[in-house]
Amino acid sequence: MSKSLANQVAVIGVGCTKFGENFDQSLQEMMVEAATGACKDAGVSLDDVKAAWLGTFSPGFSGGKATITLADALKFRGRPITRVENYCATGTDAFRNAASAVAAGQYDIVMVVGAEKLRDRPVRGLQREGIHPYFEAGSTAPGIFALAANRYMHTYGMQRDTLAKVAVKNHANGALNPKAHFQMKITEEQVLKAPMIAYPFGLFDCCPTTDGAAAAILCRADLAKQFRKDFIVVRGIGLAVMSGKPYLDPTCDYLGFPATEAAAREAYVAAGIAEPLKEVDFAEVHDCFTWTEISNYEDLGFCKKGEGARFIEEGRSSLQGDLPVNPSGGLKSFGHPVGATGVRMIYEIVTQLRGGAGARQVKDAKVGLAHNLGGPGAVACVVILGREA
Amino acid sequence: MSKSLANQVAVIGVGCTKFGENFDQSLQEMMVEAATGACKDAGVSLDDVKAAWLGTFSPGFSGGKATITLADALKFRGRPITRVENYCATGTDAFRNAASAVAAGQYDIVMVVGAEKLRDRPVRGLQREGIHPYFEAGSTAPGIFALAANRYMHTYGMQRDTLAKVAVKNHANGALNPKAHFQMKITEEQVLKAPMIAYPFGLFDCCPTTDGAAAAILCRADLAKQFRKDFIVVRGIGLAVMSGKPYLDPTCDYLGFPATEAAAREAYVAAGIAEPLKEVDFAEVHDCFTWTEISNYEDLGFCKKGEGARFIEEGRSSLQGDLPVNPSGGLKSFGHPVGATGVRMIYEIVTQLRGGAGARQVKDAKVGLAHNLGGPGAVACVVILGREA
Repeated sequence: MSKSLANQVAVIGVGCTKFGENFDQSLQEMMVEAATGACKDAGVSLDDVKAAWLGTFSPGFSGGKATITLADALKFRGRPITRVENYCATGTDAFRNAASAVAAGQYDIVMVVGAEKLRDRPVRGLQREGIHPYFEAGSTAPGIFALAANRYMHTYGMQRDTLAKVAVKNHANGALNPKAHFQMKITEEQVLKAPMIAYPFGLFDCCPTTDGAAAAILCRADLAKQFRKDFIVVRGIGLAVMSGKPYLDPTCDYLGFPATEAAAREAYVAAGIAEPLKEVDFAEVHDCFTWTEISNYEDLGFCKKGEGARFIEEGRSSLQGDLPVNPSGGLKSFGHPVGATGVRMIYEIVTQLRGGAGARQVKDAKVGLAHNLGGPGAVACVVILGREA
Repeated sequence: MSKSLANQVAVIGVGCTKFGENFDQSLQEMMVEAATGACKDAGVSLDDVKAAWLGTFSPGFSGGKATITLADALKFRGRPITRVENYCATGTDAFRNAASAVAAGQYDIVMVVGAEKLRDRPVRGLQREGIHPYFEAGSTAPGIFALAANRYMHTYGMQRDTLAKVAVKNHANGALNPKAHFQMKITEEQVLKAPMIAYPFGLFDCCPTTDGAAAAILCRADLAKQFRKDFIVVRGIGLAVMSGKPYLDPTCDYLGFPATEAAAREAYVAAGIAEPLKEVDFAEVHDCFTWTEISNYEDLGFCKKGEGARFIEEGRSSLQGDLPVNPSGGLKSFGHPVGATGVRMIYEIVTQLRGGAGARQVKDAKVGLAHNLGGPGAVACVVILGREA
């Protein structure tokens, strides 16, 4: 992203459903709750919204029908809706495309919706959709990320109890969040004694599969004051796609994600951020597994390579630390409905920047970063938001 | 689209594979052929391309893996790639999102790729993906479009021989096109005597399923002269999504597609076009079935409601007519690899506007229109391109 996009787009409203096993809500009902919540929050009507972007990875039975599903759910008809899909980075990339259209002057007010229904469908379907049948036959997301976690532990001498600290932190944050999938504190002992999924990941090292939807209303930054004083500005966005076969690539060191590094670089340049640790006040990062969050600290430049373990151990990413990470509870505790997650992160960042996060409020939150990782590990998207300067 | 986007984005290169049963090419090999062809045509290297958009409806086995598939195919890594999916309007909507990013100043040079491999996979899979299992159980694309065609024939007294004229025209054009799936002329008698698929559609009233890929290189209009004198400018784009259940909606008159009307309105306003018949020199429209093209004439404003039959009968949409439609051969003869089709239309429009279409060249082509319709019938996207003024 060139610097020209920075500060041209504002977020004026956000909405989010409770995340969890939403057996009482269809995909469409979740879309309606999130979208109307965002409109109400922005003080606009659906008629004011001129275009929409929908982030959804696997919109159900028909493998398609995504944009029409949203049009029917909202009776949002005769207007443009684009579906964006980019693995687990679907939500933030949908936000990115919507922001481009606003910055281009195409539409004054647009909406981003992220939605996914994962609980009432056969798991085999999800596995099939995420995993290549030849190159990755028999492998699963925990299995693939475990390969990298093991290499990291071997290289840097990290133990499982450090991973557990990520789960304990994110569950503690999620326990303060009424919309989180799991609102319960857990102990390090519980994490370490949980059933093993794929070494080093036990059950509590893995994020759940979840139902949920989130939405955001964007407008041109110069129009934002009409809607609210405390609007939030897009400072920078980055997206990067690497190889889908990192584990077949002999140059892959298994120690982190070049996609995150590349996406962060693009976003930091746009936002004019040279020292992330000092200039980013808090972050929502893609903790699909506990180790992933530790890798993210490093890949996002919050600390140096190999220092991620110390970053969590010293409590620097806790709610009271100098760079709180996943105050929402993260994927680990808030849940992970694939296409919804990125937009849910935008919801959390905006809520925090406005000072409206209640018990989980980050102090002096002026700049927040959202980070999605998908593919697994091959796609990353970074969005940096800030209070109006 | 606000008028501000018009004339800000240029197309400087296009590429396209042969469409057909490409059993000797993988999805990735088709992507490479189209993308490298577009780069060569534009006189840029892949390194010059800063971001990409991929239009694909059903990218194969894993239901995802789309952006990474492109990244691996092109070794286009560490850069942004977004997948856009919008039913049969996937290709033009991918183009639309790429154009927004260029107009916003995010990237100087970007690429759009549309690709789909439909022939070497079970048809059941495709049906499952396109059709809702409850609302549309047992129905197929021919069956759904046939409902509307029958209503139209009943209302306006049109006969099957008029439909046949669309097939004859598009096959005649496709016979002049070395990249078309079917390069053979057919007669009205052949069309009328072909096996019935879903009345009034016989075999030759239906477009085929096809493998293929196409690509385009876009840049800021003010930079385009650096690459070529005869660059093409984006005049306007429109996208509209209507209800996915038009046939359950009592206000649906079955006589056309409000999505096309809405998308065309947005595009015409952006392009400053008041009289499409006079101001558009030729069009590539979504002739998934012969009747669809007749409906498109009306929905795109080339003639009045109910006059589409006369439009084809009088030869006005033929290669020698006053508004040639589907000089490429259309979906009917060129083929229809879903996500590729919209980008393939861009390829044709650009080729025609440059005067490089050989035997199928439209005379004095200065303004061309591409139109996709999907959903079935619920989503439409219109792109208007013109020679640099």
